[in-house]
Amino acid sequence: MTGPARRGFASDNYAPAHPDALAAVAAANEGHAGAYGADPWTARLQGDVRAAFGDDAVTFPVFNGTAANVLCLHAVCRPWNAAIVTTDAHLHTDECGAPEAVAGLKLLAVEAPDAKLTPELAESAVRAVGDEHARQARVVSITQSTELGTVYAIEEVRALADWAHAHDLLLHVDGARLFNAAAALGVDPRAFTTDAGVDLLSLGGTKAGLLGAEAVVVLRSQGVDHGLKYLRKQTMQLASKMRYASAQLSALLADRLWERTAGHANAMGARLAAAVADVDGLRITHPVQASAVFAILPPEATARLRERWPFYVWDERTGEVRWMCAWDTTPEDVDAFAADVRETVAAIAAPAAAA
Amino acid sequence: MTGPARRGFASDNYAPAHPDALAAVAAANEGHAGAYGADPWTARLQGDVRAAFGDDAVTFPVFNGTAANVLCLHAVCRPWNAAIVTTDAHLHTDECGAPEAVAGLKLLAVEAPDAKLTPELAESAVRAVGDEHARQARVVSITQSTELGTVYAIEEVRALADWAHAHDLLLHVDGARLFNAAAALGVDPRAFTTDAGVDLLSLGGTKAGLLGAEAVVVLRSQGVDHGLKYLRKQTMQLASKMRYASAQLSALLADRLWERTAGHANAMGARLAAAVADVDGLRITHPVQASAVFAILPPEATARLRERWPFYVWDERTGEVRWMCAWDTTPEDVDAFAADVRETVAAIAAPAAAA
Amino acid sequence: MTGPARRGFASDNYAPAHPDALAAVAAANEGHAGAYGADPWTARLQGDVRAAFGDDAVTFPVFNGTAANVLCLHAVCRPWNAAIVTTDAHLHTDECGAPEAVAGLKLLAVEAPDAKLTPELAESAVRAVGDEHARQARVVSITQSTELGTVYAIEEVRALADWAHAHDLLLHVDGARLFNAAAALGVDPRAFTTDAGVDLLSLGGTKAGLLGAEAVVVLRSQGVDHGLKYLRKQTMQLASKMRYASAQLSALLADRLWERTAGHANAMGARLAAAVADVDGLRITHPVQASAVFAILPPEATARLRERWPFYVWDERTGEVRWMCAWDTTPEDVDAFAADVRETVAAIAAPAAAA
Amino acid sequence: MTGPARRGFASDNYAPAHPDALAAVAAANEGHAGAYGADPWTARLQGDVRAAFGDDAVTFPVFNGTAANVLCLHAVCRPWNAAIVTTDAHLHTDECGAPEAVAGLKLLAVEAPDAKLTPELAESAVRAVGDEHARQARVVSITQSTELGTVYAIEEVRALADWAHAHDLLLHVDGARLFNAAAALGVDPRAFTTDAGVDLLSLGGTKAGLLGAEAVVVLRSQGVDHGLKYLRKQTMQLASKMRYASAQLSALLADRLWERTAGHANAMGARLAAAVADVDGLRITHPVQASAVFAILPPEATARLRERWPFYVWDERTGEVRWMCAWDTTPEDVDAFAADVRETVAAIAAPAAAA
Repeated sequence: MTGPARRGFASDNYAPAHPDALAAVAAANEGHAGAYGADPWTARLQGDVRAAFGDDAVTFPVFNGTAANVLCLHAVCRPWNAAIVTTDAHLHTDECGAPEAVAGLKLLAVEAPDAKLTPELAESAVRAVGDEHARQARVVSITQSTELGTVYAIEEVRALADWAHAHDLLLHVDGARLFNAAAALGVDPRAFTTDAGVDLLSLGGTKAGLLGAEAVVVLRSQGVDHGLKYLRKQTMQLASKMRYASAQLSALLADRLWERTAGHANAMGARLAAAVADVDGLRITHPVQASAVFAILPPEATARLRERWPFYVWDERTGEVRWMCAWDTTPEDVDAFAADVRETVAAIAAPAAAA
Repeated sequence: MTGPARRGFASDNYAPAHPDALAAVAAANEGHAGAYGADPWTARLQGDVRAAFGDDAVTFPVFNGTAANVLCLHAVCRPWNAAIVTTDAHLHTDECGAPEAVAGLKLLAVEAPDAKLTPELAESAVRAVGDEHARQARVVSITQSTELGTVYAIEEVRALADWAHAHDLLLHVDGARLFNAAAALGVDPRAFTTDAGVDLLSLGGTKAGLLGAEAVVVLRSQGVDHGLKYLRKQTMQLASKMRYASAQLSALLADRLWERTAGHANAMGARLAAAVADVDGLRITHPVQASAVFAILPPEATARLRERWPFYVWDERTGEVRWMCAWDTTPEDVDAFAADVRETVAAIAAPAAAA
Repeated sequence: MTGPARRGFASDNYAPAHPDALAAVAAANEGHAGAYGADPWTARLQGDVRAAFGDDAVTFPVFNGTAANVLCLHAVCRPWNAAIVTTDAHLHTDECGAPEAVAGLKLLAVEAPDAKLTPELAESAVRAVGDEHARQARVVSITQSTELGTVYAIEEVRALADWAHAHDLLLHVDGARLFNAAAALGVDPRAFTTDAGVDLLSLGGTKAGLLGAEAVVVLRSQGVDHGLKYLRKQTMQLASKMRYASAQLSALLADRLWERTAGHANAMGARLAAAVADVDGLRITHPVQASAVFAILPPEATARLRERWPFYVWDERTGEVRWMCAWDTTPEDVDAFAADVRETVAAIAAPAAAA
Repeated sequence: MTGPARRGFASDNYAPAHPDALAAVAAANEGHAGAYGADPWTARLQGDVRAAFGDDAVTFPVFNGTAANVLCLHAVCRPWNAAIVTTDAHLHTDECGAPEAVAGLKLLAVEAPDAKLTPELAESAVRAVGDEHARQARVVSITQSTELGTVYAIEEVRALADWAHAHDLLLHVDGARLFNAAAALGVDPRAFTTDAGVDLLSLGGTKAGLLGAEAVVVLRSQGVDHGLKYLRKQTMQLASKMRYASAQLSALLADRLWERTAGHANAMGARLAAAVADVDGLRITHPVQASAVFAILPPEATARLRERWPFYVWDERTGEVRWMCAWDTTPEDVDAFAADVRETVAAIAAPAAAA
């Protein structure tokens, strides 16, 4: 690979950073500042997160989403605890087993339609309470927006939080694409996190247009010190020059950059879904509620399209593909791609129909 | 803390990034690129590292020095192996036990004068070879330049490598301040790493003026696949938008930014040492060979100085302090600080002498 | 609890040790012997296992089945590897997450009818080969006889071994009730382990009538040293006075004690299944091929029976129960229990029918 | 090795079990009993331990001393905590790094004369309290009697407990040879554990004449549930037929078997020390306060003696050897061995003197 790739639909982390994120980094590059978070930008971020998520919120910037997720669970689980997740959870399928390797965690994975957990599904993972032979569930983790491009309604999150708390469990939200959910629901993220009873949040900035910055946010600590300052250092997530990550996250939150990035990506997702919905031989497989379109189309069409456009095959067995929009996806990108999809699928179907 | 701190001698990671590092980040913020390292900047970095360290070098950018160090050891140790380090090693004292927690490693720590290991000292940590009751040493880890501001001569590294290889051990260099050692020795880093027999390197960029970028570099793999691509992901060190880290490291290496940053910091360290060497009541505790000066002075002088200048007390028991210079330390900073040190120590001594 | 429990159908580990096992222990209590396995009884055991499982077999006595299972997987998995198991696997549900906590392992759990894996089911767990985001499957673990009282035919094991080896995977057998399978199939255990292509075996003695002794047996090492001697010590499974465990295992194998214990337990299982098969309102839920009967009956009947007979409810949601026979279960025990089951279920049904 | 070894001075775990221990096992082999500790023998043991160590004592039988030690520390340490030990601690040198591998623990090892920690030495290991870069000490672990055959006086233990508690630390005793200390001090173990402020105890039975049984004993929980029932299972230390271990431990405690075993072994240690103390060319290296004699003698003498008598070289570098007495060591054994030592050393010295 010798130059930037064509702007396609592979992932929102193929996109560069939004200029405002870069500007925030440049602005933070001024003079000496305390290392490891004892700097004014990180202090400011603490305030920005409290303003966005409530006065109890405590923020721990980390390097990536894997870390934010694992640390949220690690913080609240003793060695004999477990986390309930969906079988689609990034935590379960895409972290190379980091929860198990780094924190010794066990995930209790439940199949969930459209990657959305419900109290009933979560309940099915709870067993042998108090029995030393079984890991004891301690936390439920959901992804918002989900790995399949769907979005929990506020009441759906609240129902999970209520159920969790009634069972002495906590609720964690993997918010790698938190702002896509906010844009989709048309509310600030607080509405479906703090205000819906969520306890712990992985605050995702990278996919929302940053160079790279995420954070563990404890929304409700209830007076418990989870030792996160130690855990973050120990799991190799403590940035010495933390100011650059903090400044990016502040840009995202305080300047509402997220509306311009995640909001735009969602609009492009909707545009793409609309443009291909009626293509014969193509089936959209999940409700398109955020920035991603999942579809099944003839494998041969997929193969031809991928010669021209970067995107991922999501499931080799079914031929399902994922088309992800980013903050910099243009309407022209979408229209050109949709037209190519339509043509390519038709071209595949034609000889078959003729045969 | 409400604004940037006064430029003092606390740490080279209090300093901002060098403008060239920021420029490299900005230049990489162009168009789409493959995530997780499948981007042109990371490809270029691989070449830059090979040019700097030899054709066998394979590079894995990671987020920080803790991770680079732990991953180097994790990669070559099976669960029953151990690493030989000095009792001053950052790995041993300053990672909140990351090697033990993340990788289940055991460190065999040896006291070493001026934080410099020798074959004789390392040998003392090898015991019960082949005995299942004892962890089996597999790797020796040294820090260059050391945590105490000293520098291994090329022959000293080679002697350790020879000894290690003769005992079927590997040699790792924690290079958080690798370039300070290079500047001190007046050679390219290759001379005291690859060419001296070092197997694994933690390549440190952050303290040399980057915003934040380090790398695991396998200098000699001898055909063994250590699974580092998996281990990096699993230990939560795989950046999605890796281009920004890679571009910074390339700037450091290919444009020889390190000479201007680490070289300058060393010069400031030497200037400071010279300026305070003859202060009555102050004793420099280790040879000043890189960018740090360690000294013991009256605790009361330390307390007064710290009201005006940021720096760390290194050892509460002895009163030893560390004064660290950075790429942006100016001769004026050094001279003003040295004058203050001289005056303050004298002021403390005066009444005592008068009494 | 103030005295021995009534002999019921709770578990084969409620039973005491067979007198021959105790006699073996007493016979080993003679004079000094090397600790940690350097004793004549352990040397003898190595020979007995080779005689039973083939000349390549290497044996590591451990304390319990949890340890045997976890060590087998730990030995062959690097940190990024995973093990394919069924969702019914003891390893997955009944070890309090020991594989994850002790060895950082990840289990890829597949639903399998009657707890019996097939190549097709195992295949469904293999994904993203070579992709650093996914744990890489390295070993398949099956339980023989299974947790649900079923038994793999020799050809079924061989098919799994062939499939595994073709995919560069290994095959492990959790043999906590290995001898029940042998008795059920009417062959020596070698026929469905070594000779069927199994690589690693957890050799279970405790449920077959010992006081407590299990072993990791490497059936086919193919020249690889898995470091098991270190792993056993490190996972706290190295007995200092190993002679007592070794002597028990030798009694089981060399004197074919297993035929008298596991064979008898199977016969009692079959007797019980036959005696309750036609009870109205009771349904046997899995083929009864070894020593356990699984059944669903009215929860009220279960509750009443448990006042008189120790046994476990296997699934609170479905009301499924497990009735396990042991080496010391008598035909009279079975007949009395079966009669009570018949009567109790009928008594529950009667008023319901009358209503 | 084809038969029992000659009764020598290698280790107290070369000795067989005392007949009373075997009798206790045989007596427990009666009828069905609840598995995993829900049996009458384990209930009885709980009472026996409370009688011996106080009403707050809670007992968790485990398989070996490695496990008892690691579990005691694991139970009270969060991932960022550390344990202070001596550099001679079995936990540090002889567990193949089990604390680090199984529990992610870090040990802060301090050199201590005669393997006996003091508050001053322990204090030297406490640093950077509250600093996320450093593991936070949480527990002090001492061995009683020590790995070097010395014994802490009651006041020495109390001083350590007082110091520990004043620093918000706990005190753990590795009691692999607890009863040798009791016999040496002429008191019941409670006097230098519970009554001296010890919080956690590894209760060692195997070296005191059992077949194999140890236990974690929480002496003072102060209302904290450490989750030990889960941790024991998870670390693979939960015996299914626990009755056999419990019955052995009860025999040791309730019937005061320990006085006859550990007391006798101590007497033999003293006899041996007395018999060789004046041998020219031999130096006893530590006070002989329990059952072991450590000495330095000419390497050639050691080599010749080891052809006839099993014992260990403790330190290859200094030539120090360990002679350990057991419950079944006879006065005749000691006298014969001492005579051989005297003669052999003299024979080595003679030609040297003649030369």
